[in-house]
Amino acid sequence: MTTRTDTLSDLDFPADGLAVGPDVADLLFREARTVNTFTDTDVSDEQVRAAYELLRWGPTAMNTVPLRLLLVRTPEARARLAAHMPEGNRSRVLAAPLTIVAAADTNFHEHLDVLAPHLENARAMFPDAAMRESMARMSALIQVGYLIVALRAVGLHAGPMGAGDTDAIDADLLAGTGWKSLMVVNVGTPAGPESVRPRAPRLELAQASLSV
Amino acid sequence: MTTRTDTLSDLDFPADGLAVGPDVADLLFREARTVNTFTDTDVSDEQVRAAYELLRWGPTAMNTVPLRLLLVRTPEARARLAAHMPEGNRSRVLAAPLTIVAAADTNFHEHLDVLAPHLENARAMFPDAAMRESMARMSALIQVGYLIVALRAVGLHAGPMGAGDTDAIDADLLAGTGWKSLMVVNVGTPAGPESVRPRAPRLELAQASLSV
Repeated sequence: MTTRTDTLSDLDFPADGLAVGPDVADLLFREARTVNTFTDTDVSDEQVRAAYELLRWGPTAMNTVPLRLLLVRTPEARARLAAHMPEGNRSRVLAAPLTIVAAADTNFHEHLDVLAPHLENARAMFPDAAMRESMARMSALIQVGYLIVALRAVGLHAGPMGAGDTDAIDADLLAGTGWKSLMVVNVGTPAGPESVRPRAPRLELAQASLSV
Repeated sequence: MTTRTDTLSDLDFPADGLAVGPDVADLLFREARTVNTFTDTDVSDEQVRAAYELLRWGPTAMNTVPLRLLLVRTPEARARLAAHMPEGNRSRVLAAPLTIVAAADTNFHEHLDVLAPHLENARAMFPDAAMRESMARMSALIQVGYLIVALRAVGLHAGPMGAGDTDAIDADLLAGTGWKSLMVVNVGTPAGPESVRPRAPRLELAQASLSV
């Protein structure tokens, strides 16, 4: 597969410099909001799969793609997860249609013969567990960015939040996997206008960048 | 501002479960590739601004939005940056139209009176520099995910890569800022089909997820 420049030529570039329509820019970024309360509408396996089919193509270091998703649906698992989380976040986890624990797989190297065929014996390059964990956390967090955009691109809304006691979550819900929990993302359909906080400001480019 | 459900109702949902068109899914994820070599075509300030105007709306912990961008354009700055990078990555940094050093601002709390108006005296909640750095790195990496998608959404292509000696980059190019470099992203227009590697595989959802 090569980079397809014909994809771009099929699109119209609006005056604001976008290669996507303004409705897409709104859906994925400009109008998208962190949602705190959701309707009872189920999030289907097909919707999760559709989001994964997008996010999995995002780039990571050496194509390690270490993000793993614990999909929490049952009341029993939901209660176990919530018990390890900050008190202020528990009720949202108990009420969301789907809660995803985003985790980094410290054993990502076991897949590298498939994922990095251009590197000879890539899995043998990572004997150091601490180095693997550092690498896995870095790329998996970048993939959390892809995950949030991908959920929106399939019409879902996300409520990302801190996970609280990640060691306890790992011991209770991820034992034996080698996965290290990073954060939690509630997923569903917003209950209504009261599901989101008033929009908070952002920095201007001049405040967030330097040129050299 | 409230969550706009009318945005969604204006869009058609194709059979593959997307809320965006297949051309958009290709542009942002499915056909997008890490680019190694670029044409000489300049990346304008307006293009960088257009990408920033998208990425800045992505969610971060407590709306800290700690990602900072060092925009490297001059030959002199490019040579200084390349000197700190892995040898295999230097020529790409020297040749790219624009190179962005993505960094985490450890002094993000200085902006919280503006960014987190719902939290009283939020900037005073972060006296611990080590805790600030950990928080800044986590949210800024998630924002790197938004950055890469946003660059694609304005029609640019990205070549993310490891930064190498980040301490040396911080001392040489980010002295006095409190910014900690995370990684490097080359930006531009692909030179041609040889600008990308053959597409490497990804894991299936069943390999990358568990349900409880």
